[in-house]
Order: sequence, then structure tokens, then C-alpha cells
Amino acid sequence: MSHQRVEPLDVEAIRAEYPILDQSVDGTPLVYLDSAATAQTPDPVVDAMSDYYRETNANVHRGIHHLSQQASAAYEEAHDRVAEFVGASGGRKELVFTKNTTESENLIAHAWGLRELGPGDEVVLTQMEHHASLVTWQQVAMRTGADVKYIEVTEDGRLDMDHARECITDDTAMLSAVHVSNTLGTVNPVNELVDLAHEHDALTFIDGAQAVPTRPVDVEAIDADFYAFSGHKMAGPTGIGCLYGKEALLAELDPYLYGGGMIRKVTYDDSTWGEVPWKFEPGTPPIAEAVGLHAAVDYLEEIGMERVQAHEEHLAEAAYDALSDIDGLTIYGPEPGPDRAGLVSFTLENVHAHDLASICNDHAVAIRAGDHCTQPLHDTLGVAATARASFYVYNTVDEIEPLVEAIEDAQSLFA
Amino acid sequence: MSHQRVEPLDVEAIRAEYPILDQSVDGTPLVYLDSAATAQTPDPVVDAMSDYYRETNANVHRGIHHLSQQASAAYEEAHDRVAEFVGASGGRKELVFTKNTTESENLIAHAWGLRELGPGDEVVLTQMEHHASLVTWQQVAMRTGADVKYIEVTEDGRLDMDHARECITDDTAMLSAVHVSNTLGTVNPVNELVDLAHEHDALTFIDGAQAVPTRPVDVEAIDADFYAFSGHKMAGPTGIGCLYGKEALLAELDPYLYGGGMIRKVTYDDSTWGEVPWKFEPGTPPIAEAVGLHAAVDYLEEIGMERVQAHEEHLAEAAYDALSDIDGLTIYGPEPGPDRAGLVSFTLENVHAHDLASICNDHAVAIRAGDHCTQPLHDTLGVAATARASFYVYNTVDEIEPLVEAIEDAQSLFA
Repeated sequence: MSHQRVEPLDVEAIRAEYPILDQSVDGTPLVYLDSAATAQTPDPVVDAMSDYYRETNANVHRGIHHLSQQASAAYEEAHDRVAEFVGASGGRKELVFTKNTTESENLIAHAWGLRELGPGDEVVLTQMEHHASLVTWQQVAMRTGADVKYIEVTEDGRLDMDHARECITDDTAMLSAVHVSNTLGTVNPVNELVDLAHEHDALTFIDGAQAVPTRPVDVEAIDADFYAFSGHKMAGPTGIGCLYGKEALLAELDPYLYGGGMIRKVTYDDSTWGEVPWKFEPGTPPIAEAVGLHAAVDYLEEIGMERVQAHEEHLAEAAYDALSDIDGLTIYGPEPGPDRAGLVSFTLENVHAHDLASICNDHAVAIRAGDHCTQPLHDTLGVAATARASFYVYNTVDEIEPLVEAIEDAQSLFA
Repeated sequence: MSHQRVEPLDVEAIRAEYPILDQSVDGTPLVYLDSAATAQTPDPVVDAMSDYYRETNANVHRGIHHLSQQASAAYEEAHDRVAEFVGASGGRKELVFTKNTTESENLIAHAWGLRELGPGDEVVLTQMEHHASLVTWQQVAMRTGADVKYIEVTEDGRLDMDHARECITDDTAMLSAVHVSNTLGTVNPVNELVDLAHEHDALTFIDGAQAVPTRPVDVEAIDADFYAFSGHKMAGPTGIGCLYGKEALLAELDPYLYGGGMIRKVTYDDSTWGEVPWKFEPGTPPIAEAVGLHAAVDYLEEIGMERVQAHEEHLAEAAYDALSDIDGLTIYGPEPGPDRAGLVSFTLENVHAHDLASICNDHAVAIRAGDHCTQPLHDTLGVAATARASFYVYNTVDEIEPLVEAIEDAQSLFA
């Protein structure tokens, strides 16, 4: 693995801050392997939000009174802190808080796409895009007359980079690609994809919802024009997402939603807009959630993202190896290695993924079953649904054994 | 007042659940009079969210494992509970969670307005609309070629209903009106406005951000087609807003944002949509926030909305009377009575509203100064900014005295 020299996590100490993990399901200790859907939220993050409500809560937008000053400062600083966490040197001028990754995608697809796309333009996606990206660009392209192309996925679950070079041409207006596939676990070569797009003067949007929680991400090293991620997958709260955009690009875009807090001047006839990020954040924003996300970033940096990544890769490799030994079980995505993240999707012969997840639940093992918001990819894989086990900082190698036992139980039940 | 026979609130007991109010600013006890911007959040609501993160947290969309089942049920039930609270008999089929009231406005203006509006159509607003409604309909109208008309405000801060009858015609496609003005405190005759619009086959959108927190609201009695409000003004959390819509209307609208969790079937070529409310809630929704909002509704119903309203009206009347005695002070909006809610905006001769709020802050009195997201109304009033004191269940009549003292101090400083 790529990070074997970092100090391993003290998982026992980490788990002490996640009381939710210390519970049983029908008498059996919970094994939570669904962090790619939502990671659990540690005490310091929950406490930061509770403390906010009990000490500082007020509306922002620079109210004059004491609490509003404090709340405004906390809200604004959260932007800077999250920007710094992903390597955005422009701070709040490059970091917008949205409600989730999906809204971040929609913001750019609407604010930029509806204005800039037209017949003859092409939006290049990958076959492994999440619906947040795929459906959004597909629908916006349909409304503008632009075409959508999909970079194909190879047999081993990687992007076909030869096909990428065919797809990305001078007609490409936007390349939108997922950084880490939430289904295949593939870590895509986003630097190479972004460079390819830039060679053809296309803009780039990277969906980092599964990447930012699990590995060091530097948006400037990637040179992404836009980059999106969510609070609830990175030890933060629900109700908040992030959109990074290069300062000059965000500055010249018009807002896609309207309201208070984002305007410069309003008359009964027309309106003008404020500065980034506020012009993209109309109405009362997710203030407590921003405080929680700030705490989550502090929490993750204290652990160290290299260690988070190494821990995840270690677990994913162990899970991959253990599941590979089960007859009739098919694992999707690349073999363990630097382009494989900490989640494993699989199917079991003769057992529907939902039945598999249900039997896992009988063993108190929480996995997800379904299309994981990648229906077209599942069609390509030839399956309606897969089961997925995913890991985070609080998981141990020992938790893979109950998963294997549950799968074997399912296998014998449906044999 | 209209509700003198309800039992008064036990404000001391109520305040015990708001530790944030038990603090001093530079040695002086805090007087929080900014609840129209954000109401404070009581312990039961904060605890409900903390408990959610510590016991139940998972992603929703009907995952199969135990935690996801619990989280999904809690999230879905929150829709039903909030729908019931505002009298929507269709439950979750009529209640969408958004990120705030502003997004609720944008959802309908985009999903319905961009499709249905065109040249010759008119959108009728009021001069006292919040920017959330005013800017949104203005910009969507501009994009579609529709016209916007504004129902005028009378000298005493009420809607000119004669002018309303002139404005609302067979050309009216949408009437969007604020229920309770966040600046004037006016309680608008929304039933009459909605009836007028319906006589001309226009649809109606009511902005209830200041109404739902402070009085019993029954959307079906109003017969509003759409009705919007926010969590953070009604003892709930930030990061969540609500959109009520009549079931048949929401059912036939296409989504305005795209992503996971809102689709029926996705291929690389096209997509189809799921049911209401999910088709309007793409991506991971505000789950913990929905749990908090559910708790806020339970909290408010336990107090009783008639009592909340009576308490607010009592405080507003006392504040109105006390401020009326100050020379050079102008109060905006109607006199105390059934069409006056629990907030008071005012200006003081020779003192800018921001200086006034700053001196109030020196007295630990938290009021808001500015245009309160109603810039055009302020232009009509002939002032750039007003100061605003607003009240909620935890405020006492005794807290009006420090406000008056602070204003008198400002007056003497600027004399």
C-alpha cells in the first residue's frame, strides 16, 4: 500500500468518541460498514454544534449585536477553514456552503451550464458518475441542446483513459468526473483528466464526495475548476455541502438562487449581487452546520488525512481479501492498490443484494444494498443492485469477520 | 388583544431551557430581541439532534440496516409531523424539506415559474415582500418575459386592498405575498388575498417565515397553493426549511434540482422522477435537522400556539407603547391589534439605525439594524435602515426597559 509508514490509528481511542457504535442490534454488537453513505459524527463535532446553540446562536450577515458578531465570525471562518483543508488558497472567496454535494453540482450546472452550453457543446462525464452529477448534467444538457458523452469503464473498474482522450475534444465545454467512485471504489486519475480537459480549453468539475473524507485532497494540485463535497461523509453534520471554485470563475458567475443575504442592491425593478461566497448562499445559511463542519475538519486534521487514508486502504484490502475467498462472490472495481479506496461492492450468486443486506442486518452488520445512485453503471455491470461495505476511521479489521460470517450465512440460506 | 383569555406563559420555566439567554455581555445580562432573524433553540431540540447523532445517525432512502431504517422512519415522520402542524392533511405528500424559506420560494419560482410564465403573464407581489420572494420572482419573471406588480402599502403599514383588487386580474398567474411582514410586523389578510387570486384562477404562494413561528397557521384554511417557512425561526435548527404545496400541484411539477434519491429510473440518456416529496429533495437531505424540527414542533405544540401568539402580541404592544413615548422615535407598521405581530421596527431622529443597534449592544440589548431584506420597502418608507426589536416565548416585559434605556442613551449621545 502507498502509506505504510504512517502511524496506525488508535481505533479504540477513536471509537470512544462515537457512542453510536457502542450499541447492539437485537443483542449483537453493531458493525457499521456504511460510512460511504454517511460517516458517523464524533462527540467533538456534535458538541461543537450543541455549544453553538447553547452559547452563540444568532443569524449572521454581520448583525451588530454581540451574538450575531460571534455567529458571523464563526460562519465566515468555517469557510476559510474548509477551504484551507482542501488546499484552496483563496479561502472563503473560493468556498461556498451549499446543502449537499448534489446542490454544489446543480449550482454550477445551472449558473454556468444554462448560460454557457448550447448545441454543438459537449459535456463529458464518466460511466461511473453518481446521479448527482450524471442526472444534473444530463438534464441541463438536454435543456440547452448540448450533448453528453461518457468515458467508459474498463473490465477491471478503471476509467478507459484511451476512451477519455477520444471523448475530450475541442467540442468539450465541461468535464465532470467523480474523484473516488462510490460504487467501484476506484480512485480516478483526476489530475490527468483535468489536464486533458484544460488542453482543450474545457472547464472541469470534480465530485469529491467520497475523496475528501478519506484522503488528502489538494484542489489546486488537481487544478480543478470546481470541486464538490459534503459534510456528512467526513465526520461532519448533515445539511451542509461545499463547492470549491477558482476565484475568478465564481466571481463572474451569476447566482442561480435568489433571496436575502446575497444581494448588493434591490429595487422593485432589478437587483445586483454581492460578493462570493455570499451571492451563492441566499437566505439563512447552515450556520450551526458550518460550525460542525469546522470541528470535523479540525478533528480529521488532528488524526491526519494520510493516516485516515492508510487505515481505509488497510481495511479495504483486508475486506477484499476476505471476500475474495467466498465462492460465488463477485467484487466490483480495481484490486487493492493506490487507485482503490476504502469501500467494496459485491454480489453473491443466487442471493439478491437486498436479501444479503437484510441477512447482514440480522448479524448486526450494517451494509448498503442497491444501485448506490449509479443506476447506469449497474446496468453496464449487468446487475440491478450490489451490496457495499465501506469503512472509516472507527472500523477495525476484526469487523470484517462478522461480515464474512453473515455472507456465508446468506449463502447457505439461499443454497 | 385577540387572545387575552389563554393562560399566560411561564417564561421563567421556559427560559430554563435556553442556556444561551443566561449570559452577560461585558458584565450586563443579555437581552435578546432579535428572534425575527433567528429564534433561539431550546434544550429539547438541541438534545434531539445530539441524540440522533449519538444513537441513530445513518443515511436515509430506506437503507436495509437497522440504523438506516430508524433514520429513514424519523426523517419521513418529520415530514408528516410538520405537515400536521400547519394543517396540511396530505402529510409528506404535501411537505418538502428545503434548506430554508428562500429555497422554498426558489423551488416554486423555478419549477413552476420558468415553465408556466411568459409574456403577458403577471406575478403580483406586495411592496413589503422579503428579498426571498421579491428578488426570486423578479428575476424569474425577467427570464420569462412576465411582468411583476406590487400591491402598495398604506401610510399605516397595511396592504392597500383596493390596490390589491386592481393588481389582481385575469392576467395574474401567481400571487406571492408575505403572511407576516418581517419589517412592519403587519399580519396580512392572506385568506382574502388568496380568495382574490383564486377568483382570477391565479396560483398563490404565501411566505410564512414570520407567521408559523408565532401563531397558529392552517394552510388549508388559508387555501394557499404553496406556503413556505423555516426551522431556525421556530425554535428549530438552521439548515432546514419547509415548502407546503397542494398534493396535486406538487405531483405534477418537475424537479428543479437533480441528483440521487429523487429519481425513479436513470439511464445514460434520460431520467424519470420519484414521488413527492423525494423528487424535490435530491442528495442527502437535512436528516438531523428534520429530527430537530420535529422536536421544535413538539415543543411549540406543548406550549400551545395560541399562547405563543398572545405572549408575542402582549410584548409587542408593551414595546410599542414604551417606544411611542420617546420623542423623535418613529415606529413603522400598524398599531397594536390583531393585524400586528410581535416585532417593532423604528428609527430615531438624528441617530442612524446602525449606531442605535451598536449602543443597544453596549447595553447588552440585541436588536437588528438594516434593511431586513426589504430594501425596496425601506426606499418607500424613505429610510435606508430601521432598527428592529423582535420577541419570542422567552422574552419578558421587563426586557423592554433596557431597550428603552439604550435608546434614550443613544438619543443623548447624538443630541
